[in-house]
Amino acid sequence: MSVTAAQGFTAAGIAAGIKENGNPDLALVVNNGPRLAAAGVFTSNRVKAAPVLWSEQVLRSGRISAVVLNSGGANACTGPKGFQDTHATAEKVADVLGVNAAEVAVASTGLIGVLLPMDKLLPGVDTAAAQLSEHGGEKAAIAIKTTDTVHKTSVAQGEGWTVGGMAKGAGMLAPGLATMLVVLTTDADVDAETLDKALRAATRVTFDRVDSDGCMSTNDTVLLLASGASGITPEYAEFAEAVRTVCDDLGQQLVRDAEGASKDIKIEVINAATEDDAVEVGRSIARNNLLKCALHGEDPNWGRVLSAIGTTKAAFEPDRLNVAINGVWVCKNGGVGEDRDKVDMRYREVHIVADLAAGSETATVWTNDLTADYVHENSAYSS
Amino acid sequence: MSVTAAQGFTAAGIAAGIKENGNPDLALVVNNGPRLAAAGVFTSNRVKAAPVLWSEQVLRSGRISAVVLNSGGANACTGPKGFQDTHATAEKVADVLGVNAAEVAVASTGLIGVLLPMDKLLPGVDTAAAQLSEHGGEKAAIAIKTTDTVHKTSVAQGEGWTVGGMAKGAGMLAPGLATMLVVLTTDADVDAETLDKALRAATRVTFDRVDSDGCMSTNDTVLLLASGASGITPEYAEFAEAVRTVCDDLGQQLVRDAEGASKDIKIEVINAATEDDAVEVGRSIARNNLLKCALHGEDPNWGRVLSAIGTTKAAFEPDRLNVAINGVWVCKNGGVGEDRDKVDMRYREVHIVADLAAGSETATVWTNDLTADYVHENSAYSS
Repeated sequence: MSVTAAQGFTAAGIAAGIKENGNPDLALVVNNGPRLAAAGVFTSNRVKAAPVLWSEQVLRSGRISAVVLNSGGANACTGPKGFQDTHATAEKVADVLGVNAAEVAVASTGLIGVLLPMDKLLPGVDTAAAQLSEHGGEKAAIAIKTTDTVHKTSVAQGEGWTVGGMAKGAGMLAPGLATMLVVLTTDADVDAETLDKALRAATRVTFDRVDSDGCMSTNDTVLLLASGASGITPEYAEFAEAVRTVCDDLGQQLVRDAEGASKDIKIEVINAATEDDAVEVGRSIARNNLLKCALHGEDPNWGRVLSAIGTTKAAFEPDRLNVAINGVWVCKNGGVGEDRDKVDMRYREVHIVADLAAGSETATVWTNDLTADYVHENSAYSS
Repeated sequence: MSVTAAQGFTAAGIAAGIKENGNPDLALVVNNGPRLAAAGVFTSNRVKAAPVLWSEQVLRSGRISAVVLNSGGANACTGPKGFQDTHATAEKVADVLGVNAAEVAVASTGLIGVLLPMDKLLPGVDTAAAQLSEHGGEKAAIAIKTTDTVHKTSVAQGEGWTVGGMAKGAGMLAPGLATMLVVLTTDADVDAETLDKALRAATRVTFDRVDSDGCMSTNDTVLLLASGASGITPEYAEFAEAVRTVCDDLGQQLVRDAEGASKDIKIEVINAATEDDAVEVGRSIARNNLLKCALHGEDPNWGRVLSAIGTTKAAFEPDRLNVAINGVWVCKNGGVGEDRDKVDMRYREVHIVADLAAGSETATVWTNDLTADYVHENSAYSS
């Protein structure tokens, strides 16, 4: 159902020829109103792709009429020509749809440092526009895939209103945000300010806590568009929870499809002095290559969890730390705990609990194991 | 020549049975004076192994009579019993050598969270003491190996005085310090304060800038012992340069022996506003798994260099960044530069220059590529 689950939206996904292998590579999502409210969150990388710079500008008005997304090229580190190409893409969409180019968001994903084949992309906009449909959400989700093995969509239903969305992302997943393109839509009648508040609250605890490989992208974009077509304005808390649910579901799908991964690792940091401490510790554990290799080898190597915790500034005493892996407290009070042979590591999900014994705050960060397949996929990506 | 290149030192390396495979696992280095000056630098990990906590105490006096080192077990996260074991080891060495236990440094390396087999280690001290020799440096260097494929030693000669040393380290190499045990010795007649100054100056630009896998150990220890046996007190600058040379050489050997690596990557950050900026950018590039995979695949993927730079707080403008890989400026002014096909990636050494165009400071950080072999070695380490 994806981005067309909510009323007031049409979408399309086509093969414009941007990808040399002929796979779908261009998606269009159109808000048919009556409302055109929108919010967005972008990469915190200081090296931002042209479409990110463009879409940040678009969002200053709080209005988006349409989103055009391409895979097959990130249009990052492409200089003034790259920005001109993004601008020309928005103008083309505006022209074809009869909307204002200043209300057309652009998102791109693929290899950095390569200009997009505009001779293919621009005609592709015509093709996509001709195929816009209330049933086009699935095709749009397929067209934004890069190394994704599956397309990702999610829907949450309110009473008479809906939040739906699509995501792409399979590697280079790290906070600020997890590397991804995401478009969420809703037919709830909600203004831009409320959308912004709900989206930031949701991404902070979902996409921002997915850290597959510690690498931050230049292109991360999460957009939330409201059409108001349901005529219903939900309570904020209810609406925010629906947005969070969809973001959480899409975030989990990103983790499960991470390049080469064989384990999905849930890192729950408990009894932290502050939530920031809990997140810092969770990220540090999530980024420890040695631990990620050990978990790949189904080795509950808790010493590597402790050495990762030890690199943080979080409040804790080394001799009060406790660590559980898959329910077995293998580390107690900073030393040897229950028998590590009791830890069952056969399943895809691994659950680490790191108890800082320093307060009552909690955060959960998701990552993956580090595998030879990850190395293979990413050593051959651009060549 | 190792730790016995300088006059006034004896050393030994033996198999005490700590390693189940029977390989050498216990080393002893003794300073026979007349001076017993010493300095040390330790891991900045807040989770410190028992021998690190012990040796930090020992160094408060600025005197070390002997260093006992074991491989086969890190004695980290082993609680009060682990600390008692370290203490007992120092007492045993003191007893056998007739020195003060408060002047015996201890260093351990191996798996975290496992108690040392003291019933093998303590008799091993007797065996090692019986084999102490002015020619024992090589054997000591061999006994501290873990996953090292070669033992590492280095010597620098002054006029009538010498600095020599040994190192172990092959993975978990990351600053603060590169994970390692290092013992340096000199027969220069230098006091503890001068040793400390020279050692900190040297490690700051050598071991601290080796970042093989971003993982910081609980056991890093670098010791510098002076016997004064040459009777010569060199100029500070000359002495510091000799210490730096030995540290640099050993650091390079660590990089070349990094687990599973097929590329040694030199990251030179130039035209930074501050040296701290240069180091931050160098580390960020060194820790980017996607780039490390790309370089393994001999892919000069400069976009991943830019996205790593973009995650730092260093002063720079994205559209003024330049990047050279093996002499080819593949990125100019934040965009596409010379043809990336011109980059010759066939050799083991890869040289990346990141030009921040923001000042005149420089730093060089060393790392390795990320390979399937790294994953294999580290997924099977403790099992």
